[in-house]
Parts: sequence; C-alpha cells; structure tokens
Amino acid sequence: MNKYLKIDPWCIIEDTFSRENHPASESIFSLGNGRFGQRANFEESYSGESLQGNYIAGVYYPDKTRVGWWKNGYPEYFAKILNAPNWIGIEIQVGGELVDLAKAKVLSFRRTLNMKEGILYREYHIELASGKQLKANITRFLSMKDPELGIIRYSLVPVNFSGRIGIISSLDAGIKNADANYDEYFWDEVAKNFKDDCGYITSRTRKTEFDVCLGITTRILNGEEVVSISPTIEQREKYLAFHYTPEVSKGGAITILKYAAVQSSLYHKKEDLMDQAELSLKKAAEKGFENLLREHKERWEEKWKTSDILIEGDDEAQQGIRFNIFQLNQTYTGDDERLNIGPKGFTGEKYGGVTYWDTEAYCLPFFLCTAPSYVARNLVFYRYKQLGKAIENGEKLGFTEGAALYPMVTINGEECHNEWEITFEEIHRNGAIAHAIYNYVRHTGDKRYLIDYGLEVLIAISRFWRQRVNFSESRKKWVMLGVTGPNEYENNVNNNWYTNTIASWTLSYTIQLIAEIKNMDEEKYKILVSKVRFNEQEEIPAWEDIIENMYYPIDKESGIFLQQDGYLDKEQITTDQLDPAQQPINQHWSWDRILRSCFIKQADVLQGIYLFEDHYDTETIRKNFEFYESRTVHESSLSPCVHSILAARLSDMEMAYKLYLRTSRLDLDDYNNEVDEGLHITSMAGTWMSVIEGFAGKRVRNGRLVLNPQIPEQWESYSFKILFRGSRLKVKVTPKNLYLVNESNISAALIVLDESIQLNGQEEKVMKMKK
Amino acid sequence: MNKYLKIDPWCIIEDTFSRENHPASESIFSLGNGRFGQRANFEESYSGESLQGNYIAGVYYPDKTRVGWWKNGYPEYFAKILNAPNWIGIEIQVGGELVDLAKAKVLSFRRTLNMKEGILYREYHIELASGKQLKANITRFLSMKDPELGIIRYSLVPVNFSGRIGIISSLDAGIKNADANYDEYFWDEVAKNFKDDCGYITSRTRKTEFDVCLGITTRILNGEEVVSISPTIEQREKYLAFHYTPEVSKGGAITILKYAAVQSSLYHKKEDLMDQAELSLKKAAEKGFENLLREHKERWEEKWKTSDILIEGDDEAQQGIRFNIFQLNQTYTGDDERLNIGPKGFTGEKYGGVTYWDTEAYCLPFFLCTAPSYVARNLVFYRYKQLGKAIENGEKLGFTEGAALYPMVTINGEECHNEWEITFEEIHRNGAIAHAIYNYVRHTGDKRYLIDYGLEVLIAISRFWRQRVNFSESRKKWVMLGVTGPNEYENNVNNNWYTNTIASWTLSYTIQLIAEIKNMDEEKYKILVSKVRFNEQEEIPAWEDIIENMYYPIDKESGIFLQQDGYLDKEQITTDQLDPAQQPINQHWSWDRILRSCFIKQADVLQGIYLFEDHYDTETIRKNFEFYESRTVHESSLSPCVHSILAARLSDMEMAYKLYLRTSRLDLDDYNNEVDEGLHITSMAGTWMSVIEGFAGKRVRNGRLVLNPQIPEQWESYSFKILFRGSRLKVKVTPKNLYLVNESNISAALIVLDESIQLNGQEEKVMKMKK
Repeated sequence: MNKYLKIDPWCIIEDTFSRENHPASESIFSLGNGRFGQRANFEESYSGESLQGNYIAGVYYPDKTRVGWWKNGYPEYFAKILNAPNWIGIEIQVGGELVDLAKAKVLSFRRTLNMKEGILYREYHIELASGKQLKANITRFLSMKDPELGIIRYSLVPVNFSGRIGIISSLDAGIKNADANYDEYFWDEVAKNFKDDCGYITSRTRKTEFDVCLGITTRILNGEEVVSISPTIEQREKYLAFHYTPEVSKGGAITILKYAAVQSSLYHKKEDLMDQAELSLKKAAEKGFENLLREHKERWEEKWKTSDILIEGDDEAQQGIRFNIFQLNQTYTGDDERLNIGPKGFTGEKYGGVTYWDTEAYCLPFFLCTAPSYVARNLVFYRYKQLGKAIENGEKLGFTEGAALYPMVTINGEECHNEWEITFEEIHRNGAIAHAIYNYVRHTGDKRYLIDYGLEVLIAISRFWRQRVNFSESRKKWVMLGVTGPNEYENNVNNNWYTNTIASWTLSYTIQLIAEIKNMDEEKYKILVSKVRFNEQEEIPAWEDIIENMYYPIDKESGIFLQQDGYLDKEQITTDQLDPAQQPINQHWSWDRILRSCFIKQADVLQGIYLFEDHYDTETIRKNFEFYESRTVHESSLSPCVHSILAARLSDMEMAYKLYLRTSRLDLDDYNNEVDEGLHITSMAGTWMSVIEGFAGKRVRNGRLVLNPQIPEQWESYSFKILFRGSRLKVKVTPKNLYLVNESNISAALIVLDESIQLNGQEEKVMKMKK
Repeated sequence: MNKYLKIDPWCIIEDTFSRENHPASESIFSLGNGRFGQRANFEESYSGESLQGNYIAGVYYPDKTRVGWWKNGYPEYFAKILNAPNWIGIEIQVGGELVDLAKAKVLSFRRTLNMKEGILYREYHIELASGKQLKANITRFLSMKDPELGIIRYSLVPVNFSGRIGIISSLDAGIKNADANYDEYFWDEVAKNFKDDCGYITSRTRKTEFDVCLGITTRILNGEEVVSISPTIEQREKYLAFHYTPEVSKGGAITILKYAAVQSSLYHKKEDLMDQAELSLKKAAEKGFENLLREHKERWEEKWKTSDILIEGDDEAQQGIRFNIFQLNQTYTGDDERLNIGPKGFTGEKYGGVTYWDTEAYCLPFFLCTAPSYVARNLVFYRYKQLGKAIENGEKLGFTEGAALYPMVTINGEECHNEWEITFEEIHRNGAIAHAIYNYVRHTGDKRYLIDYGLEVLIAISRFWRQRVNFSESRKKWVMLGVTGPNEYENNVNNNWYTNTIASWTLSYTIQLIAEIKNMDEEKYKILVSKVRFNEQEEIPAWEDIIENMYYPIDKESGIFLQQDGYLDKEQITTDQLDPAQQPINQHWSWDRILRSCFIKQADVLQGIYLFEDHYDTETIRKNFEFYESRTVHESSLSPCVHSILAARLSDMEMAYKLYLRTSRLDLDDYNNEVDEGLHITSMAGTWMSVIEGFAGKRVRNGRLVLNPQIPEQWESYSFKILFRGSRLKVKVTPKNLYLVNESNISAALIVLDESIQLNGQEEKVMKMKK
C-alpha cells in the first residue's frame, strides 16, 4: 500500500518527485487510445529505475517457452505484446550537462493525469549541478481522434541563465522486452528514412513479421513562433535523432513540439507504411497542436457521456472509479475486432496484451452497458474467430470431434500459458466464454448473433464438456476430475463445484438454443448441423444425461456448496484468524502451504452463484456467501468485486462497501506493491460492476433492464449511465430518491425497485428509494 | 527399443559401427570407479553426435533455477554434477587428414566392455579419404585401485602406408554442461603447468569453488619400446596438448600410452593439488600399464566375489543382471561418506550425480547384501549429516520445531528440484529415509547406529509427519492433503495410501525405538532429548493419536487399498485395453490426460505392501497386486522390480519373470529410447532386488536371514552371494535343489524354505526345493 497521490475528482496528481514512486507512476499515468499505449516514462533522459514501454495493439512476438520441466502439451511459445520503438525521447542538454531528474536537484515537480481530457501534464523546476535552473511544462496525449498519433509539447524556461540548449528528439527502435524469456531482441530494422523534417524507422517483428513504421517530426518554438533552425541528424542502427541547439534567454520559454505517427501492417500494406506515417505526420502538422488537442478532448467527452459514474460525498471513491473507467476506455475502444483486452492493457509487460477469461467475465459487462453495441459484439466475436484454434487446442490435449478448449492465454487463438495446473486444468474459461454469449444476447437482444455465430461456439464447448466429464461407477454420477477453478489456490481438484455448474449450464443453454434456433431459422440451423457434423439424436441425449446426473459436491448438513471434493477435510480457519503480518499469503507462505490451507484466492462457488443467481434462493446465497467470504483472502484482483455484488444482493451494504473499497483503488493506492509492473486493467471492470450490478442492482431479465439500487451510507449520491437496446439511461441514486432520465429517443423497458416501467425517450422519472 | 548389442555372459559387445547408436553406446560403455566416471566417448576426433562427459564425484555447481512461473519456496538453484575437463583426447592425423569415424570409411569396428575386468576395449579398421588404412586397438580403464587414475593404451597400425602420423594428446578444460540452464561455463582456469613430460590444468568451479587438477602424461611406443621424441606443446586458455609426429612403417604398430590423474579439493588442499596429480602420474609411470591393469582387475575380482549373480541357461538375463551390478559398482564404492548415488551415476548429465529417494528405496538393499557394512552405513549416514539442512528445508515451507523435510533432489542437503507437485508434495521420500534406517539396522543388527544417529533423524521426520497431517472434522480422522506419491502420474492428491501408511509407520517405529533406546542407553537418550528438545509427554501421545486415527482410503466392498481419495471416480480401464501405439503414454498423451486417467506410472500401494509385507495377509496382497498391476504402465524404471518381487511373493513366477525382463535389460535394449542421456543406475539396483528379494525370497526377520527361493522355468540355475552380519553366503538355486555355502568363517542364522538353520563358517548344505 502506498498512498502518495492527491485526491481529486477528475485528476490523478503527484506533486512531489520521488525516485521510489516513479516506476509506479509510470504505470498509473499511462496513456492509451486503444491502438497503442505509452507508459508515463519521462521524455528526457532518466537514469533512475524505469520501465520504458510503448505497446502497439495486436503486434506480438512468440517468445520461446521457458520452463523448468517440460510437460506434454505445453505450447512452444508465449505470445507477448511487444515493447515497441520509443518515440517520446527528448533529451535536454545544458552546457554539456544532461537533464536527468534522477540526478538534478528537483525544486518542484507535478504530474497530472487529467482523466476528463485524457491528457498527461508534467511540470518540473530543477537545478543542475552547474547551478543552472530550468522549468519545464509538458503536455502529452495519444489522440483518440487520430489513433495513430502521439503528441508532446515540451516547454522549457531557463530560470537563471541564457545560452544554447541542446535538444535531441529521438526515435529508438533498439528496444527489448524486459520480460523476454531469453533476453532476445524481437525487432529488426527494415528501413530508415528521412523526408522533409521527418524521420522514420520501419521495424519488423521476428517470426511474426509485423511491420511497424514510426515517424517523428519535431518543431522548436520560441513562444508561439517556430524557430527555423536546421537540425543535425544522428543515425545508427535502429535509431535516429534530430539535434537542435537553440539559443535561449533567461526567463524566455522555448517549446519543443513533437508529433509521432505509429503505423502498422495490421492496417496497411507493408510497402505503404512509411507513406502512411508521412500522411499522418502531415495531417498532424496541418491540424496543429491546439486542434489535435481539441478533437482529442471531444472524443473523451463522448466517452464520458456514456460511461461516467459520478459519486457525491466521497472524492476518493470518485477518483477511484473514474480512474478505472478511464483506463478501460484507454485500453479498448472496440473499433477493431482483432483486438482484445490484456490484463495490464498497455501499461506493462506482465501478462500484457494477451487475452484471458477476464475479458468475458469482467470486461464484457462494462462495455455492454457503456459503449455502442458493436464494441461488446466485437469482444464476443473475437472468440468465434478463434474457434478453429480452440478445436485444435482441444485436439492437442486428446479431445476429438470438434470439441473446443479455448486457451487460457492467447493472442492469436493458440494457447500460450505453460503451467499444467492452469493451462490444462483451468478449463472454466470455456464456461465463461459460453456465458459471455448468453450475457451479450441477454443485454442486447441480438439473437441473430446466436444463429450466425454463437451456437457454433456453444456446440463446440458443449462437446468439450461432454468429453471432459467421466462417469464414476462408484458414485453413479458424472464427475469432472483434475480441474483448477478460478480459485487458483487449489490445483488439480476433483468436482470443482463452479466448473461442474458452468459445464452443465452450457449444455442446458445449448440445448435450449438449438430448439429456439430451429424455430427461428431452420435453414441456417441445417447449414450449421452439416458444417459441424452435429448429431442431434446422439449428442443431445448424451448432454441431457450429463445435465441430469452431474455430481455436485455439497455439505448435506449445512447445504453449503463445496468448492471441490474434500474441501471440508481441510482445517477450517477463517480469515479473521489470519495474522495480518502473514498477508498476502502468496508473499509469505510456501506454495504447498497455500494449497493445503482452506484459504481462497477468489471464491469459485460465489462466482457461480453470481453468474446463476436466479437459480438459488436468498437463504442459499446468504449461507454460501458467509461461508466463503470468511475464507477468502481476495489475493486475486478479480475477487472482491463479485463478493461486493453478492453482499449488495444480500442487502449487506456495509460489507458491499468494504469490499468495494478493496477493488476501487487497488492500483492508485498500490495495495499489492506491484503497480510498477502495470495496472490491473481487467479487474477495473470488476470495480465498475460492483457499483452497477452491486449497489445499483442492475440485471437484465426477460428483455427488461432491472435496477434495484441501494446506496452506501458514505455517499450522498451516485449517478451513472446505461446503454440498453438503443436507449441511454441516466440513473441517479440518493438515499431517498432514484432519478431516471432516458437521454435517448428510444423507449426502454425497465423493472425498477420491483416496479415495471416503460421509460420513453427523453422521459424523466423520480422514484422513492426503499428503506 | 533397440537391440544392437551382442549377447555374452561377461561382455557388452558392439561389433559394427553405427553413428545412430553411438550416443547410446557412449552411455552403455561408460566407465567409472566411484571417484570419477567417463562416458565412452572416442579418444580421437569425432564429428558425429556425441555427449562428451567426464564427471567427478562430489564436484557440483549450483545452476540458477530456470522456471516458467515461480512458486514461493522454490530453490534458487539446481546442483548439477559437472562435466569436467576432458582428459581422453588423442587426435590422430594422417597426412593432414583427421581420423574421425563419422567421416572415414569404417571397415570394421568392435567395442567391448569387459565387465569382469572393468575394461573398455575398442578396435577399428578404417580407410581415410586418401585411401590410407589404419587399424587401432584401444584399452581404457579407470583404476579401481588408484581411483584418481585414468589409463588409455591406443595402438595404431598403418595398414597400407608408411610415413609420419600426427598425434595430439590433449587436456581440455573448456567444457560446458549440455544441461546448463543458461548456457554458462561452470569452470574457470586457475593454473596451467608443465613439468617433465606432464601437463596440468587446475580448474575451479564457479560459486562452489571446488578446485580440480587434471594432469596427463603421454608416451609413444614402437612395439614395446618407448620412442624418444620430444613433443611440441600447444597451449591456450583452458587447454593444453602434446603434439607428436612419429614415423610409422606399414604394418608396424605404434602405441600411445596416456595416463591421467584427477585430483580434487575434496581430498587435498587446493595448493597441493598439482603436486598430488604429479605424484599420481609418477606412480602410474612407475607401476606401468600392465601392473596398473592387473591391480585394477584384482579389485574387480574382489567386487564380483561378493556381488555376482550367475544365471545358467539364459545368457541374455545373465548379461543383463551383470551389467546392472557392474554399473552399480562403478558408481558407488562407499569409500567416501560425502558421496551418494545419482540416478544416472557418471553416465550422463540428466539428474546426474544428485541424490533422490532411489538411494534409500532401491540402492541400499543392494549394497547391504553385497558390500562391506560400512558402505551401506555411509549411505544411511549421508542423510544424518544433512539433517540440519532438512530441518531448514522444512522451515522454508512453514514447518517448525525441528521438523525435517528431506529434499527431493540434493547434493549438499539443500533442495534443488523445482516442480511444486514434486518438490513440495512428493514427501514420501521422508518415509523412505526413515525406512532405510530400519532396513539398515534390520540387516546389520547395528543398533548402535540408532542410538548415535538414527533416532535423531526419526524424531525429526516424525515431527514433520505430525505437522503435515491435519484433523478432518468432517471425517473425524487425521488426513494428509496435497501429496504426490511415488506414482507421479497423480499430483496433489489427498490421502495417498502409501504416504499415509509410511508416515504412520514412521511414528510407530520411532515410538518403539524410543522405548528400546531408553533401555539400552538412557544416558545417550537424555542427551538427545535435550539436544532436540524432545518433549516425550507431549509428542508421543500426539503421535499415538495420529497412528490410531489416521485415515486410509479403502474400497470397502473389494478391500482394495485406494491409491488416494477419489481414485475410483476415474474411468477404470486396464492396461490390456491400451493401444500399444499410444505407449509409453508419457510420450503420446498430454499431461492432463495422463493425470485424469487411472493409469499408474509406478504403483504406490504396491510399494507400500512391498515395504510392509508382513502387515498384510496373502489374500490382501494378491487382490491389491491384481488390481494395481493391471493399471500400471511401468513408465518409471523403478516400477517393474517391485511388482516382480510381489508376484514372486504370490508364487506367480511367470508374472515375476515377465516383470523382471522389463527391468533387467532396460538400458542394454534401450526400452525408452533415451539411453543416450545416460543409464538408469538406481533402477539397476531394483533389478538386483527382483532376483534376490523376488526369486530368492530374501528377507530378514528377527535377526535371521530368510530365503524362500523359487526359480523361473527359463533358467537352469542361479547363484548369488549375500553378506549377512559378517558371514558371506553363497546360494545356488536349481529347480530341484538349493545349495548353500557359508564362504566365511562366521556362522549365520537363517530361515531357509521355512526351516530354521544355523550355517557355520565354511559349512555347505543342500536342500530340496519346494514343488
């Protein structure tokens, strides 16, 4: 835990310079625009600890797998999002001395991430060893309007001297991933070009052969006037730079304006990349800084219009929730169906850029409610496109006949992960992917998606479940052996309640859909049957048998659903008996001690109850919640949000709020002392869920949007937006009243506080909150 | 499977040259003398596939751990036996052309490992590209008498030419381990010296700082006459060589005699190493080749006197069993209590040189019966010396109060292995170490060992078991969760029957010993109590409670002991239903499929029944044997021997013989296509057990040696020796008679074929075999 940032409803502020906090700040103040992302590295030289990082969505490298002991079935490589050529470099030299905040005397420092505008500001006032003082004022953003553009305005004021300043504006393609398994370079230089006042480097990723061209152009301004000085050009392999040595006078400002264009072969032919980068730089120069800034802000304004949550009476919570929403919107815009959401987005390398079940289980609900429907559809469709690879992955592990096992970690549909207990056993991800289809259709009503794509995925997953269970002659039940649930503090367990539940649910949902779709579009159904060689007569009865005779571990006495076979054989201790000095246990205990303890990283059973809430009565939910919450250490960032939602469901708002706090400022307050590695992007969506599905009780039932809002007593009010089937609803909750506004022109069918209402376009409604 | 070697009772013979078989032959024809070992690499240049290997006992390097995903508690390094400086190099040049069997036309080739004498012979007749033909005749041995000496005699006959031949006799310290995790060099050169006609390189291992000095000296002989030519000396970093260019005449023999001395800082002060190597080389030169050879053979004769097994009527079995005994005697002589037995001995790098439970469970019985009693004592004592480290290892994993968890893999007492499911969970090794103490004392009657050392180890292990179980409130029994048994095709199971059984046995045995020792030597007992802070009043009752209330999984209906909780939930298939094309399953199935199947690598339950045979009636043994044998794929080299012993115990000699065949020629016939990596040294002891404990029914009960011999119908007779409490017994078994000879002067108490007899010194006895 490290609370060094200032509280502000719209800004993240660091107002003193600290070498210790800098690596964490590099993550927290990261910028992104869905297409690429940039950690908050300094433009000028910095000799302190730093993780330089620019990441381009969809550009990856298959890094050869590193293991201690090989197991059959491991993938040959881990697809890594690449640390891409560094375009931000602006080195400043004063009389031969480099500006370096790790070495200079920092008289004042301020870094501000304006989340409303999506802009990173920085100011410093330093004294160099020579006694010369310099003030700087830096603005940086990655354009949301022109997503190939990065823009920096770097203004300098020599406080107590006049003379020449050396400025080196560079582009450096000689970069490495810090997490490379064998310390290799992943990029080769393809070309280096200079044209007009621009410099370009085209680089190619090894093996995957993505080409990326970065171009930069730099202007030096004296006040608002462009200074016409010709730079000296420096170039060497994988590097180019423009050197300027303008004359500055004491107290007068000099400004460096740097535009960078990032063009990749994802969007253009390789041979056109440099031309495209050139076009982008020209466009940037034509528009100019102020226009670029304005257009960028406008895009952010749009985003906030549908996704903001306003909390009155709790600035810390306000800042926390906005930070989460801001980072989600920086990471994924949904414009490109080939992209997905990495657990750390563009803010770090660890797990960076590759897709986990986090997308389906956590991120999808956020984008469903806050973004145009194609955004969520693209997320769901991503897995449809990878179905062939998921079937191949199943085959590699011995499954047959079109059974799909989606990978645990992937960027191109192939499995990347290499811990057997996760790679092979954490198969619940298949359930989350099935459920996401259901969730998408439930929210949007887009049944066409099921006919065109969804059912095909569901059949393939159902086939997997069928082969993955086996009939236990001793129990006379179908069992599922050798599984790791979402609670990764258990490995290789039998009959994980959650996995058995979601498997059986998948089978039921698929059977139900088949009946529906046969009705809706028999023609299309027949085409699918033939495409996937679906044998209705044989497969459906087999699935029904599994649904009927699936084994679920349960404690008969208490009615508690058991996380897995034998869970009650463990010594039953609750977290209140855990020495705080031993927490997080994953930093203090050996792995075997963690495995043997009853403590839970993230409670599977509650995850299942959350997903299938309507199957269980309140009493069942309550007793399971109490049992598992008291054993859960929440050492997964994905854990507290689900507990918070269930606590709210049980009207325990105190508990719901307590759990909400654990998730909302996880990164801002660096709970686990690891923010320097990057932000927990996907769990940020969980925080949003805590508010919308937890406090506000948002559900969708029978095509209607359900709201059952409550409010934490710490808050005066909270407001949010929900996009639902064409309508945009604004909801404001106060302790006494609930304010509804349909900001769109499309009528919405709601059930609010148990009352069915139709809220017409532009209609407002005030309702009394329940006591 | 690859049967390319000729059958011979005393020799291993390869009579054609094959590049494909050469890497396997390099393992099979390995030499060792307990102090160092040398793979059967060619002396001359060889450009084909080869794993160069010279390994020096006890000289290791802590190679930084390589894992994909770190788990708390993993060791920082893996201690590896080092590929040490190469002393065998003798390069031959004929008219600028290098002799290289991978390139020359090989007209004839023969390689013979004479196991009776411990000598490797090789002959070749080749034609070079120039058309020149050369015959060679090479003798190599590592002296058993002077264990620092390696000796080569390399005779050459130019068949169809005369002229100068270039001979380069080298010493190369620039070697790497093929299995180095980060491709690093582990050796630095400390010094290079030349003195008289000898060259020396002293090398130091990085981190561990072992110094090793190797010295070589080379003579050129024309017939039996030393040719007096001064060599040219070549030297560079980590390398030295002597160049000779003698004149040879067609049909005349020229002989290269090379002595090498290997001296390490394990036995001498670092500053004396070169002097010691010099002394050794002088000694070698003074003795001369023939005397060295004779003394070496004499030592082998001694070894065979106590360890040979003679089989009549089955040369293949004869060769197989002798190969196993030969390799065991090459690997460990028991002269140095600091050494132990690596699974691959000195024959390869994989798992090479480090200690596993194989030592206690497989090797100890062999050395108990065939070597002077200090040899087995040294093996047992090795673990006593590492008790402190075992307690530290327990502490690292969260155990307290002097609880010892011995490492899975070690060379210095510290854990090396880094797969959590093995490192942390395969704790049955602790049981094997406890049982080895029992086994040692049972055979030797050396109760003093218990008082002085054994009990201290047993208390520490008992303390571990106590902390490792927990009380299941739901079963009202002590359970042991999160375990991997010897059957490594299951991971992280609960209540592994074998581990629960050996844990409970350890506690019982320790309690029983405490009572005995208090009687025998109360003084010493009190000292121990105080040393280890043993709280008899508190600890013994706690242990007794565990013994009394330990949970053992059992199928009540059939009475089968279940390998672990839930084993019967698996689909029950027997190995006869397994497609042979899918075997070995570990090469054809994904790891998760293996884990979920009922197939067993090595049957835990049978291992337990083998160890504690007297606890179970024959019917119980029979039904468990049938159940588990039919599910066991024997993909551990340690598996078939135990099954063979139990089959013999059940008088199923056909089955016992079938299983014996799987183990006895495992390496000679390269069953698993991996002999190139090295031999399965420790499982060789299991083969010996199959004969002695299986066919011959050797046991020790109440201080008497028990024999209940049977004989496979394929054999005419078999004979073996057993050392038992000072006596040396020779036993010969034929279908009709059993011949006993007490070759010593010490009387032995026996129970043979259920008859109690006393066999006095030099007494012989003939008994009728049972029908």
